Amino acid sequence: MKALLLNALHQPLDFREIADPIPGPGEVLVRLHAAALNRRDWWITQGQYPKIQFPVILGSDGAGKYRGKPVVINPSLDWGDDPRFQGKSYRVLGLPDNGAFAELICVPRKNIAPKPEHLTWEQAAALPLAGLTAYRALFTRCRLRTGERVLITGVGGGVALMAMQFALAAGAEVFVTSGSAEKIEKAVMLGAKGGANYQEEGWDKRLKADVGGFDVVIDSAGGDGFATLPGLCNPGARIGIYGGSLGKINGLSPQILFWKQISILGSTMGTNAEFRKMLAFVTKFNIVPVVDSVFPLADGNAALKRMEASGQFGKIVLKITPFF
Amino acid sequence: MKALLLNALHQPLDFREIADPIPGPGEVLVRLHAAALNRRDWWITQGQYPKIQFPVILGSDGAGKYRGKPVVINPSLDWGDDPRFQGKSYRVLGLPDNGAFAELICVPRKNIAPKPEHLTWEQAAALPLAGLTAYRALFTRCRLRTGERVLITGVGGGVALMAMQFALAAGAEVFVTSGSAEKIEKAVMLGAKGGANYQEEGWDKRLKADVGGFDVVIDSAGGDGFATLPGLCNPGARIGIYGGSLGKINGLSPQILFWKQISILGSTMGTNAEFRKMLAFVTKFNIVPVVDSVFPLADGNAALKRMEASGQFGKIVLKITPFF
Repeated sequence: MKALLLNALHQPLDFREIADPIPGPGEVLVRLHAAALNRRDWWITQGQYPKIQFPVILGSDGAGKYRGKPVVINPSLDWGDDPRFQGKSYRVLGLPDNGAFAELICVPRKNIAPKPEHLTWEQAAALPLAGLTAYRALFTRCRLRTGERVLITGVGGGVALMAMQFALAAGAEVFVTSGSAEKIEKAVMLGAKGGANYQEEGWDKRLKADVGGFDVVIDSAGGDGFATLPGLCNPGARIGIYGGSLGKINGLSPQILFWKQISILGSTMGTNAEFRKMLAFVTKFNIVPVVDSVFPLADGNAALKRMEASGQFGKIVLKITPFF
Repeated sequence: MKALLLNALHQPLDFREIADPIPGPGEVLVRLHAAALNRRDWWITQGQYPKIQFPVILGSDGAGKYRGKPVVINPSLDWGDDPRFQGKSYRVLGLPDNGAFAELICVPRKNIAPKPEHLTWEQAAALPLAGLTAYRALFTRCRLRTGERVLITGVGGGVALMAMQFALAAGAEVFVTSGSAEKIEKAVMLGAKGGANYQEEGWDKRLKADVGGFDVVIDSAGGDGFATLPGLCNPGARIGIYGGSLGKINGLSPQILFWKQISILGSTMGTNAEFRKMLAFVTKFNIVPVVDSVFPLADGNAALKRMEASGQFGKIVLKITPFF
């Protein structure tokens, strides 16, 4: 099969022919039609993950066919027994296990599920990791209720957009933040009620004055800006955090947290049960993941460059032309 | 009646005779036998609370008699309709409403409950605010389960000790931190399995190595030290925070929060239903609040000084000699 190999850090991926993988016990062989990138893939190429092994095929998101039937792959491997947290043998597909930037992939049988019929291959590949992460953060962890007001920070990323679409489908009123006026505009076209540009001084006070407080906030940045979020919250609010692209959180006021009874809820990925619930939710509400751009598998490095530049709005997808 | 009045900031309380209070609609008149101090009382004298009015009688904790029957007072006034958070008209007894540092007090009828029979007046007065705060943080917010491992930071304070006693009664394994070896020793005598002195370099790594991780942490300090706590946690852990004596939280890692599925849960006081559940719990398990010291009401300023010095282990209580 053809695959994109990571042979060393800070190197372009190596597009080449390698031996077809052979399914182990409990595994199935999936012929991939599309894969999608996640920030994680880029970080791995930069050495930001522990225990990187070479060569490895990256890619946590894939959609393809198993025995002729269209499937999507749940990238949560061996979650474990407790739905509250992942166990010791938990892995995300695409390191150390070979991932979806290839024509073929072996995954545990329990990690495949029927592809939602209303999605193209590219849209289906865009769904798994972002959809699962957004679903758990929003519903399992933050327990979003219909009619609540939600703030999604840093809209444009895959999970953020998915969280926005899920919250809208669940009957929430959704606002977004971004450093780009264009991304806010696009989010509003997709159903967000409004947004704020966090590059503008005083954006938080204006947003609070215009809109009132938020019941749920979904953030993946952390950093110094995180300390602003509790101030934007209603009493009883839940702040879901699934990433930390801006690093450590500073200047967080305990008094606002306890007086407003705020919950800060770390969340990552999800269980097989959550994956299936997420697929049912997406199917029920005809949710279509936003695809930013599609590259041929052979152009994986151009796709990674687009991820690095952070200009995308939605998922960056690799189209895998079947060779069979 | 005799009462301790706060007439101005940074002034000793003024012990004097004033007119007896008259119950308003829905209120009852309680003849107090004992009151207890909270850090809040001292902070108010230092101007650390908004909208302070003068003169005011401080004191959130009281036990006494209503129509000859022994009662304790729930200091949570007008919580509101939603058990998840207090409403707009919520107040803590003892500012702006006159509090318990007096011979008589008027409180809403629904805020009194029968005094647990196994407690003395002084022990009963030590219970309400600390007991309610500890109960909500530990059970409602952090959902402590039997057999879990709990860390209580800054043991010695009233809420911290109560949280320790409640967690022990609930069948948890409890460890404590303190800046004082003597306080840790006392906590161990009360049932804690061990402790760590946070003044000692590397205390957190040693504690983790000796004990393993924690499922629930109860903190009232915040500050830079808070960022250490997620590292001490097991996956799925809950960190309840009900105070912020060391100020803003810095250096908190989002990655640890989301990868371990950690919840940081702000919590303060509680509802009337929680107050009654707390009293039932205290009665069922014969829990006796730790009383650090007892001062006559007339010596309220000496009691405040003891609070200021932070040397106490347990609650500082005012004994109110009935004048009737």
